[in-house]
Amino acid sequence: MKEFELINHYFKGRGITRRDVAIGIGDDCAVVEIPDNCQLAVTTDTLVEGVHFFPDIPPRALGHRVLAVNLSDLAAMGAEPTWVSIGLTLPNVDMAWLEQFTEGMHEIAEYYNVQLIGGDTTQGPLTITICAKGIIPKNKALTRSGANVGDWIYLTGPVGDAALAIESRKRGIALSAEQAKRVTEKLHYPKPHVAAGQVLRGLATACIDVSDGLLADLQHILNHSTVGADIDVATVPISDDLKSIEDQALIDMLSLSYGDDYQLLFTVSDSNRSAVEARLSQYGVEAKCIGQITNNIGNIELFKHGEKYVLPEQIGYEHFN
Amino acid sequence: MKEFELINHYFKGRGITRRDVAIGIGDDCAVVEIPDNCQLAVTTDTLVEGVHFFPDIPPRALGHRVLAVNLSDLAAMGAEPTWVSIGLTLPNVDMAWLEQFTEGMHEIAEYYNVQLIGGDTTQGPLTITICAKGIIPKNKALTRSGANVGDWIYLTGPVGDAALAIESRKRGIALSAEQAKRVTEKLHYPKPHVAAGQVLRGLATACIDVSDGLLADLQHILNHSTVGADIDVATVPISDDLKSIEDQALIDMLSLSYGDDYQLLFTVSDSNRSAVEARLSQYGVEAKCIGQITNNIGNIELFKHGEKYVLPEQIGYEHFN
Repeated sequence: MKEFELINHYFKGRGITRRDVAIGIGDDCAVVEIPDNCQLAVTTDTLVEGVHFFPDIPPRALGHRVLAVNLSDLAAMGAEPTWVSIGLTLPNVDMAWLEQFTEGMHEIAEYYNVQLIGGDTTQGPLTITICAKGIIPKNKALTRSGANVGDWIYLTGPVGDAALAIESRKRGIALSAEQAKRVTEKLHYPKPHVAAGQVLRGLATACIDVSDGLLADLQHILNHSTVGADIDVATVPISDDLKSIEDQALIDMLSLSYGDDYQLLFTVSDSNRSAVEARLSQYGVEAKCIGQITNNIGNIELFKHGEKYVLPEQIGYEHFN
Repeated sequence: MKEFELINHYFKGRGITRRDVAIGIGDDCAVVEIPDNCQLAVTTDTLVEGVHFFPDIPPRALGHRVLAVNLSDLAAMGAEPTWVSIGLTLPNVDMAWLEQFTEGMHEIAEYYNVQLIGGDTTQGPLTITICAKGIIPKNKALTRSGANVGDWIYLTGPVGDAALAIESRKRGIALSAEQAKRVTEKLHYPKPHVAAGQVLRGLATACIDVSDGLLADLQHILNHSTVGADIDVATVPISDDLKSIEDQALIDMLSLSYGDDYQLLFTVSDSNRSAVEARLSQYGVEAKCIGQITNNIGNIELFKHGEKYVLPEQIGYEHFN
């Protein structure tokens, strides 16, 4: 099958059609309209087989996941996602695989009203790069650099379930079939906090999505904002599935040092605290306060039930270690 | 070396800084400004080792080339290139390689006033996806669909040299050391026709960059415009290096059926013909007329010195053949 037919069949004419797309798939470039008084937000994420996902991931999940991780970056900026481009490198043309992969992509794209506007399909080891674009009212972007001493630190939901799905396979952590299914579903079909990100514009002082691990991503906020943080580990929200494994050191590591759940981590001033909680709650997001910004520049201090706490193994998800 | 340090060291704080970049590398997204009355043009191209380039390509050339092929798509649309994002998958961290690769990228980015605004570096088989963005005055994009019967067909410069560089290695075509060096330079450091593309806005009726092969790309214009074309093969511009190989069938194949030179192929009405030639000439581009649009829908007829001509082997560059 020729490249062009392949692209046309699986990508063109499927999914939603946005009115701001002047020229979609099929020319040298796509051409889109940015509304007045808006800026363009752009993010790029690559997933590589064997590094970012197990080779046996269902293709529909992979299609969902690769878009979700990019939409999560837009959410962390407070942007409204609009268009995506894909660089898809495939070892061969497997019709059934492509059908499922694009189905997964189109499902999440439709849910978030995002249009696929172009891309490139090439032959090689399975690698997927998405460049996602979004719009944002002028100068309203949520950055990593606005956290102030005294701000409260929040998380949009539980962390560690996706890590549990990965590590239960790698380390053989015992889970029931239902638990394994639930956490694998969370790993495969993460839900980017697109609405929450937009709600936080003008309310949060800093925001990041947890993709490298809660502590590693918090560290980014601290470095950009030149502040420190106290975190009460006992208040970090985790699921009943993660609680059930009982090894407290492992629970802490999975919840604090792994990404892949794509929660938003944000800071908010004391005066906006209740407004943020109320607004997010309207969108079904029960954000949890897990600590406070300090003047201990660049340092995270962990506490547990009032006592200082040292994490057994503190690493974010880093390549090329 | 950790991923973030790697990105920071080789990409951040290098190259040009555009005033329309509100937030560059280092946050969850980049944020940029689109001027009033402009649209955004977006293109994505992936290069895979062993498929799109020989494994021994100098890394500086690879950095140049991967950006050039994307800027060429923007040029074919008449867009002014502005920002690029990169998805870079590397088998390992090779400092010397990265230094040269990013040097090649930054050189061409600076030349065309393009800023690298973000990306993702991952571990895996060498694969590079660029998503290039540009701006274009509202509704002025050059598409593939505007060619009319009677329009003249032009090429911005010689084709076939990059093909000669590839095939001289694959087939062992005898070239002098100087010739080999010259055509390899053209393969490694293609010059996208960024200025020409913008000059053609409002003058050309259709435009495409020759990346799949002259005839394959002409076919795209024919299909999108619902027209046909007569091409006089003897008028297709080729270099003295290509002329020197003397095998006429091979010359025709290399010049008509390979991409990689990144010339623009465009159509222009009879009344705008001299204006286009004069305007392009001001930018040092000596465009050559190679044929005319016909009503023979979807078909290309080849001629040579007035006689019908059949190409020995007529294929564009297609993956998964």
